[in-house]
Amino acid sequence: MIKACIVSIGNELLNGHTTDTNCSYICGHLLSIGVPVVGVYTVGDDIKQIVRALKRAAEDADIVIVTGGLGPTDDDITRQAFAELLGVKLQVKPALLKDIRKFFADRGLPMPEKNTIQACVPKGASPLENPFGTAPGIFAKMKKKLFFAMPGVPVEMKEMLEKSVLSRLAKKGTGGFTIVKKVRCFGTGESALAEKLGDIMTRGRNPLINITVSGGVITLHVVASAKTKKQAGQMAKKDVNHLRSLLGNLIFGVDDQTLPEVVGHWLTQHHKTITVAESCTGGLLTKLITDVPGASEYFTRGWITYSNQAKTELLGVPKQLIEKHGAVSEQVASAMAMAARQKAKSDFAIAITGIAGPAGGSKQKPVGLVYISVCNGDDCQTKKCLFSYTRDLIRTRAALTALNMLRLSFDLSA
Amino acid sequence: MIKACIVSIGNELLNGHTTDTNCSYICGHLLSIGVPVVGVYTVGDDIKQIVRALKRAAEDADIVIVTGGLGPTDDDITRQAFAELLGVKLQVKPALLKDIRKFFADRGLPMPEKNTIQACVPKGASPLENPFGTAPGIFAKMKKKLFFAMPGVPVEMKEMLEKSVLSRLAKKGTGGFTIVKKVRCFGTGESALAEKLGDIMTRGRNPLINITVSGGVITLHVVASAKTKKQAGQMAKKDVNHLRSLLGNLIFGVDDQTLPEVVGHWLTQHHKTITVAESCTGGLLTKLITDVPGASEYFTRGWITYSNQAKTELLGVPKQLIEKHGAVSEQVASAMAMAARQKAKSDFAIAITGIAGPAGGSKQKPVGLVYISVCNGDDCQTKKCLFSYTRDLIRTRAALTALNMLRLSFDLSA
Repeated sequence: MIKACIVSIGNELLNGHTTDTNCSYICGHLLSIGVPVVGVYTVGDDIKQIVRALKRAAEDADIVIVTGGLGPTDDDITRQAFAELLGVKLQVKPALLKDIRKFFADRGLPMPEKNTIQACVPKGASPLENPFGTAPGIFAKMKKKLFFAMPGVPVEMKEMLEKSVLSRLAKKGTGGFTIVKKVRCFGTGESALAEKLGDIMTRGRNPLINITVSGGVITLHVVASAKTKKQAGQMAKKDVNHLRSLLGNLIFGVDDQTLPEVVGHWLTQHHKTITVAESCTGGLLTKLITDVPGASEYFTRGWITYSNQAKTELLGVPKQLIEKHGAVSEQVASAMAMAARQKAKSDFAIAITGIAGPAGGSKQKPVGLVYISVCNGDDCQTKKCLFSYTRDLIRTRAALTALNMLRLSFDLSA
Repeated sequence: MIKACIVSIGNELLNGHTTDTNCSYICGHLLSIGVPVVGVYTVGDDIKQIVRALKRAAEDADIVIVTGGLGPTDDDITRQAFAELLGVKLQVKPALLKDIRKFFADRGLPMPEKNTIQACVPKGASPLENPFGTAPGIFAKMKKKLFFAMPGVPVEMKEMLEKSVLSRLAKKGTGGFTIVKKVRCFGTGESALAEKLGDIMTRGRNPLINITVSGGVITLHVVASAKTKKQAGQMAKKDVNHLRSLLGNLIFGVDDQTLPEVVGHWLTQHHKTITVAESCTGGLLTKLITDVPGASEYFTRGWITYSNQAKTELLGVPKQLIEKHGAVSEQVASAMAMAARQKAKSDFAIAITGIAGPAGGSKQKPVGLVYISVCNGDDCQTKKCLFSYTRDLIRTRAALTALNMLRLSFDLSA
């Protein structure tokens, strides 16, 4: 199986101002045609370092994908580095110069002199078309290794990757296909989940299973490689089914599905509605619900009752109940949910009350203490949670836990 | 001047599923204490490749910063790679094991057996404290080169970088100082703003001025380098003052200040309160307001009135007004804001109504059309906006524009 390596070029990638989003994009697209990326070298606009990275990348892989440094300004020196690597000179290509002049003419502008360099290609290499900008790419061969250099501007890179790189590699044949399926879980920790998986996560296994975690959502990546696309797809599907049998209702979705989408889909399918009353999450849960296009099918209104008085005035939570148990309590959470459900005349209601911090905690009620209540008809389930870390993470975890409780309550009501 | 190199570890970084945001964060923070990053090596969870990357990084730089591969599962092998690099064995540190057990006990959970590996450190290396998770970092020295290994989980990495890496390097002295000041703007486009700046953005200038844009917020990074911290600080300060004179009230804050923070600070200082009525942003604006710790000083309640009926039932917006002008109209936006302000008895109120898409648009009222109303006492200002791109971006831009309108209304009322 042939392999690729990426060389990412640009000072801005090393001074903290730009996150390299090209790499993961290129990795995913190469993998989808069966070419795994085995490493990425990120270097600044320095000719020695670029040449060294190109050489190392060619040692590691059959295909070297380069991004960045093809602009018209003095700090763009990827072309010169390529010429040095190949031991040749740069040559002006008249056809490219004509294209670049036309690019400016089409916009009613004269071509700045600096852009002439973009019509240059190392001798023996060929240009790659750039329909979205003035920087053509470069294709070169050296000792059976293939080099593709593309601009760093994402929209230009994506078009060139599709039209000039992937199509060329797919024609060549890559010796295999890789399918990646994702399985998304919520409701347990990473290591506890891994223990349920047993030896399915062994390195070198095919499909390979990787884990990533974000805001409490655990994603299992099933990476299946085979000679044909069909075979790879079947292998991935078999593993996804196996994961389902191991993990049961810890799994809420596949691929890029989110908890709000899954919950929203169920509500739409079952013609049910939901409302929300939020205290410590202050709008975050409602925001997540309405992130989903078409949420108006099942959501019409919600209340942010941040102060005690607001809980009483807007929802009718008895003042005495708050005085007796405190605003952060099981009793107040379920009273908020029940009141919201009645006022909205909805099928389901969620209420959240807690201490998001950093201030406001006590020994009895520490920062991170959150009560979440989910009502389905007259049946209310209230959960006491203790979340960790920052205000942001406590709020995110609380909102996602609420959506997950709602999801699990569907299973019971179905 | 000492230099650093980063080794980023994880299969998920090479299979297209995860964008590496740690690198630019680390680069920026190292640069701020005068340590430039000269290269990044990204490799998968493969022990040979990790060891090779560590060796190459140590050739390139004095300090090697490693992220990822410290989790409890079988694909996490950074510890083992370090032991191989150093030619030593892994040792269980009883104190670490105790901490990890406590981490689980505090959450009322038994420690999964798999987590034992996280208490292991290569012989001769020392652990770095991780207050936010179960994976301690690793600090090792080899041939005068310093190695710091941190978890890949951003929140854990950031805390460890600050507490265990930057503080240690700053003490050591780095041979020069770079101060980065940020100036944050809202209310214009990137190129229009750049035109106001003239030649202050010239490459090679010191301080160097870079621009980044995110969700409509434009950040100018002033990067000043000098022999002493004081000198660099003075240079940065001079440029920030110059930017203030050029950009006036387009600037809402400095460094990491957000619009909700700036607005919240003003409200607190002036003992004023605010309420919110949201339609298309569905909780996002309220979420942004309550992101700020201490928001309860000035925010007590808000309404999410997603349907027409909710606008009438919860806020008392006349049904006829909605029928006559439509829910997405100047009239309904200002009626929502006025009603919310009266009901909440607050000083200020914001209302947002619009079409976030992707569906629901028409020729007269296209996707992206949003009316935002800001009331200060009986004085209401309503703005018609047309935002572009995705549902997510339309909602974000609407919420931030609302906060910016509020900020500018303070200037008038001050």
